[in-house]
Amino acid sequence: MDFNAINSKNIKSLSEDELVLYSEFLRSRIIDVTLKNGGHLASNLGAVELTVALHYVLDMPSDKVVWDVGHQTYAHKLITDRANLMQNLRHDGGASGFPSSIESEYDPFITGHSGNSLSLALGLARARDMLNKNQRVVAVVGDGAFTSGEIYEALNDLGDRPSKLVIILNDNKMSISHNVGAMSKYFNKLRVNKKFVDAKRTFKADLSTLPFIGRSLVKIVTKTKDKIKESFVGNKFFERFGLKYYGPYDGHNVSEIISATRLALESDKPAIIHLLTKKGKGYQPAEQQPSAYHGISPSSKSEQKSMSKVCGNTLIEIAKSNEIAVVTAAMADGLCFDEFARRYPDRFFDVAIAEQHAVSYCAGLAKMGIKAYFGVYSTFLQRGFDQVLHDVCLNDLPVTFLIDRAGAVGADGVTHQGIFDLSYLSLIPNLAIASPSCGSELAELIKFSLTYNHPLAIRYCKSYKEDTLCDKIELGKWQVVKRHNSSVTVLAVGATNDVAKHISGATVVNARFVKPLDTALLDGISGTIITLEDNVLHGGFGSAVRDYVNGKNKVISLGHKNEFSDERSRQNMLEKSGICTQRIQKIVDSELLLLENEKNI
Amino acid sequence: MDFNAINSKNIKSLSEDELVLYSEFLRSRIIDVTLKNGGHLASNLGAVELTVALHYVLDMPSDKVVWDVGHQTYAHKLITDRANLMQNLRHDGGASGFPSSIESEYDPFITGHSGNSLSLALGLARARDMLNKNQRVVAVVGDGAFTSGEIYEALNDLGDRPSKLVIILNDNKMSISHNVGAMSKYFNKLRVNKKFVDAKRTFKADLSTLPFIGRSLVKIVTKTKDKIKESFVGNKFFERFGLKYYGPYDGHNVSEIISATRLALESDKPAIIHLLTKKGKGYQPAEQQPSAYHGISPSSKSEQKSMSKVCGNTLIEIAKSNEIAVVTAAMADGLCFDEFARRYPDRFFDVAIAEQHAVSYCAGLAKMGIKAYFGVYSTFLQRGFDQVLHDVCLNDLPVTFLIDRAGAVGADGVTHQGIFDLSYLSLIPNLAIASPSCGSELAELIKFSLTYNHPLAIRYCKSYKEDTLCDKIELGKWQVVKRHNSSVTVLAVGATNDVAKHISGATVVNARFVKPLDTALLDGISGTIITLEDNVLHGGFGSAVRDYVNGKNKVISLGHKNEFSDERSRQNMLEKSGICTQRIQKIVDSELLLLENEKNI
Repeated sequence: MDFNAINSKNIKSLSEDELVLYSEFLRSRIIDVTLKNGGHLASNLGAVELTVALHYVLDMPSDKVVWDVGHQTYAHKLITDRANLMQNLRHDGGASGFPSSIESEYDPFITGHSGNSLSLALGLARARDMLNKNQRVVAVVGDGAFTSGEIYEALNDLGDRPSKLVIILNDNKMSISHNVGAMSKYFNKLRVNKKFVDAKRTFKADLSTLPFIGRSLVKIVTKTKDKIKESFVGNKFFERFGLKYYGPYDGHNVSEIISATRLALESDKPAIIHLLTKKGKGYQPAEQQPSAYHGISPSSKSEQKSMSKVCGNTLIEIAKSNEIAVVTAAMADGLCFDEFARRYPDRFFDVAIAEQHAVSYCAGLAKMGIKAYFGVYSTFLQRGFDQVLHDVCLNDLPVTFLIDRAGAVGADGVTHQGIFDLSYLSLIPNLAIASPSCGSELAELIKFSLTYNHPLAIRYCKSYKEDTLCDKIELGKWQVVKRHNSSVTVLAVGATNDVAKHISGATVVNARFVKPLDTALLDGISGTIITLEDNVLHGGFGSAVRDYVNGKNKVISLGHKNEFSDERSRQNMLEKSGICTQRIQKIVDSELLLLENEKNI
Repeated sequence: MDFNAINSKNIKSLSEDELVLYSEFLRSRIIDVTLKNGGHLASNLGAVELTVALHYVLDMPSDKVVWDVGHQTYAHKLITDRANLMQNLRHDGGASGFPSSIESEYDPFITGHSGNSLSLALGLARARDMLNKNQRVVAVVGDGAFTSGEIYEALNDLGDRPSKLVIILNDNKMSISHNVGAMSKYFNKLRVNKKFVDAKRTFKADLSTLPFIGRSLVKIVTKTKDKIKESFVGNKFFERFGLKYYGPYDGHNVSEIISATRLALESDKPAIIHLLTKKGKGYQPAEQQPSAYHGISPSSKSEQKSMSKVCGNTLIEIAKSNEIAVVTAAMADGLCFDEFARRYPDRFFDVAIAEQHAVSYCAGLAKMGIKAYFGVYSTFLQRGFDQVLHDVCLNDLPVTFLIDRAGAVGADGVTHQGIFDLSYLSLIPNLAIASPSCGSELAELIKFSLTYNHPLAIRYCKSYKEDTLCDKIELGKWQVVKRHNSSVTVLAVGATNDVAKHISGATVVNARFVKPLDTALLDGISGTIITLEDNVLHGGFGSAVRDYVNGKNKVISLGHKNEFSDERSRQNMLEKSGICTQRIQKIVDSELLLLENEKNI
C-alpha cells in the first residue's frame, strides 16, 4: 500500500490494521523531517494515533478540529496533502510548525499560544448552532493547556450554555518540561484509573467464563467497582462544567480512540475524551528525554552564544547574596533556568503556562521586599499585558521582566515573533526598558536591576555574536560605541548593534535603554539620526526618538513593518527590514552627501 | 459609644454586640457618602460584616488583605482612618473608589480589575515564607471573580505548592449584573447547603435533648448526614486545589465570620471560607435592584447623551437583517446591551468576567461567518491583548470591538482609565481603529462594520454632547469639518472634536480613523499639524502622524502624558492635557503668527 497517497478523504477506506501501519509510516516521516529541519519532535510523535483516528472518524474540513498550541500537528499536516511542504518544515517556503489557515483549509486558525483552543472551538460550535448547521467540532488540548486560565473561562461558559463539541485531552504528563500544579496532580489521579479499567476488564472476562454464576456476578462486581472508581478517580471536575467524561484510554491505540470518539460525538452533551499518550512515542531518545526533544534545532555551524545561558548564570550568581525569586511560566529549559532551579528550589517558581498569574504573583513577591524576576518569551508576555500594566507598573513594584526570544525568532515563525514588545511595553508608565547587545551587557543589566527599585524590562534575543566592552550602567544612559565627527548618528538597540558597529562615517551609539531615552545625548545631536530596532516600527524606539526630537533632527527609522511576518530565518527578516550593514551604510553615505551638498550651497 | 473613633487597632476592644452596632453604623455611613458622591453601593453594603470581622481578627497592616477588584472596600476605608477622605469619595482630593496603597498602608496594592487577588496574595504569602515572617494573608474574592481565568492559574499554583493563606469567598450570587457560568451553578449548589447545615444543627439540638439515646444517635445521624452532604454538595472542587473548605456561613453574622476566620487561619492548609452575602444589604432599593445600585452616579445636571445607548440601539437595528452575535464580559448593563439581550437571547452571549475567552470566542464565531461584536470597557480589553493580536488580528477575522469608556473616565480613577487603547491597539497589524465623535457617527461606524471584513476597533467615551453631520464612512478617510485657508490644521480624534470645532483660524478635521491614517489628506497638508487625542501620547495618534509626515510638517501633539492619572474628573483631565478650546486656540494663533513672520522675512 502506498501510504504516501493516503489523505483525509481516502483514509476512511483503510482497515484498522492498516491504520496502525499508517500511523507507523507517519511516525517515521515525522522523525525524518524533524531531524532534518528541526521542530517539535516529542509532542508530534505522541499525537500520531489520535490524529489518524480523528481523520478516520470526522469529515474534515467541514468538521472542525482546533489544535491547542498546535505544535502537535505534523501528522495532521501529512494527512492533509502537505507532505511536500513538510519537506521544508519551518524553513522558508515550507510548512509552518503550527496550524495555519493560510496553508490549508484543514486548519481553521493560525495558532501558537496555549489555552485558547476551547474558546475558539466554542465560537465555532455556537455559530454552527446559530446557522443551523451540523458540523462536528473538536478541540485537541494538551494537559499543559489546562494550567492556562483561558481554558477555565471557556469551560465556565460551556457549562453555562452547553454546546455540542468534543474535547480530546491529550495527556502526556507534561507541557513543555514537567507539568506543574494542582491540575497535573488531578490528571495523575485520573491516569491511575487506566490501570484500574484494564484490570476490571480482565477481571470481568475471567468471571464471565465461569458457568452459571458468571454473568450476574460480573454485574455486581462491575457495579461495586464503579462506585470505587468514582470515589477513587473523581472525574466530577469535568462533570461540574457539564462535560461527559470518557476515559482514560490508550492514546496510541487507534481503534480505542476511534470508538471513544464515536461515542463522544453521539453524546447529547459536550464531552471530553481523556487519552494517555507518550511524548516522543516510538523514537527512543525522545521517549527517554522528551523535554530535550520538545523543540530540536537542525545541526548548524552557528557560532552564536546563548543569551539565555548568560541570564541563567547571572541569576545564580546574584542569588548568592541577594533575596531574589525567579519565576517562569513553564519555560525553565528554554530560558536556561534549570540549573538555578536545582540550586535554589525554594526561590524558583514554575507556575505552569500561566503568564497572567506569573506577573501578578511577582507583584506580590516584590511588595514584600523580594526582588522578583519573571523570565518569559517576548511573545508569551503578551498574555500578561494587563497585569504588567496594573499589578506591577501602576503599583510601581520592583519586578524585573527577563524577556527572551525578543525580535525576529526565525523558525518558529509568525505566532512566536517577539517583535511587538518594545511597542506594547513602551506605552506603560513607570516601566523602564533596556535591551542588551551582548551577554556581558545582559549580565550587567541584571546586576543593575538589583539597584533599581522600580519595574524594569530587559529584552534580548536568543543568542549573540560576541561580548563587547560594557560601560557602567546608568538608567537612561546610552553608550557611544564609535564617535565620528560627522552629522550622522546611528542609534542601535540590542542585537542591531552587531550590524551598527561595522558602519563607518557615522557616530554609533548603543541605545541601551529604550525607555527612558538618553535625552541629554539626543539634545546634543545635530544632523541626521538613524534608529535601528528589531521590533515593529509603530510605537517602538524610532517612533519615541522622533516624538522626542520633534523636528529638530531628520530621523530615519529602520525596523520591522507593521505587519505579521512568517519569515523563518532571523537573518532574512532583519535584512528585509534593512537591518544589515550594507543597507545602513548606503543610507549613511547618502545622508553625508546630502549634508555636504547643503553646506556647499 | 463614638463609633467615629473606632479603627483597625481599637476595634478589638468591642464586644460582639458592639460589632453588630458598629456594622450598622458603617452601613449608614456608606449609604450617605455613596448617595452623595456616587460609587459602588450594593457591593459595599454586602461586605460590611466581613470587613469588620477581618479587622477584629487580623493585625493589619502587618497582616495583609488583598481585595479582589476592590470596589467593596468602603467599610475597610472607614475603619482605616479614611473617614475624611470618604467625604469626597471618588472626587478630587477624596478617597479612591478602589484600594490604593498611596492612600493607606492598609491597602497593599492599587487594584481595580478582577481575578488577580489570589495571585497577589500568593506572592505575599510565598515571600513571607521565604523571609521567615509570620504575617497572615487573606484574599477577599467575590463569586464573580471565579469566572476569571487568572484565579484558576493561581489556584493551580497554590495546589502545587501549598502556602498558608485564607480566601474569603464573598458570594453574593452576582458579579456586576447576574452571574453566569458553570461556577455560578456550582456556588448555587454549595449555597443550598447553608439551609442544610442550619437544618442539621436544629435537628442535632432536638435529638440531643432526648434522654439516654440522644448523644449516640446524634453521632450516627451526623455521620450519615455528612456523607449525604458531601455527595450532595461536592465541595471537592476546592479540595482538589488543596484548599480546606469552610462554609457556607451567613456573611452578615459578624460572630460567625469571626469564628470561621479564626478556624481557617489555624488550619495547616490554605483555606477558603464561603460567606453568603447580600448585595445592597440594609438598603431596601439596593437589595431589590442590586444591579442598578452596582455603580451609582451623583445626581447631575449633565446634558450629555449616552454613547452606550446609541451602541445598544444600533446593534438591535442591524440585528434585524444581519447574522450578528453580541458578546460581553459581564458588562451588559454598563454597555446598554440589556435590551439587545432581551430581544435576541440566542445571539447574545455574556461570558462572565472573561475577556480572554470573549475575544477568542468571537474569533471562533467570525470564522463561521457570524459577524461578532465584543462590547468591552477600554480598560478591561487590556486583559485580552494577546487574543486580540493572535486569534482575531493574526487570523484577520471580522470581529468588531466596541470599546466603551475610552479615554479619561472620571470618577472611577486610575484603575479604569481608558487612555492606553489607541497605543496598544495601533501596534497590532490588520486592525483598523475608528473613533466616533458623536452618537450618529458611532451608529454609522457600526453599520460600516457590516461591510468591513477584517478586524475593527471602534473606541468611544461614555457620552457625547451633540450629534453632528456625519459624511459617508470610508476606511481610512477623515472628514473635514471646517476648511480654513491657513497653514494650521487641527486633526481631532473622537470626543476631542467637541473642542476642535470651536477653533478658529485653522482647518479642522475629524480624524475618524486612527488606523489607517488618511494619508492622502496628510499628504495635502502644508504647515503645522495639531493632533488631539484622549489617549496617552506614546504610540498614539499624534505619534503615528509624526511618523508618517516624518519631518514634512511641524507636528504638535496634545494628549495625556505617559503616566498613570488618578484624576477624577474627565473634564479636568482633558484640560490638564491641553484638550480645551482656549489652549488650542492659543497654539493655533501663535503658529499663525510664526508662519506669518517667516513669510515676511
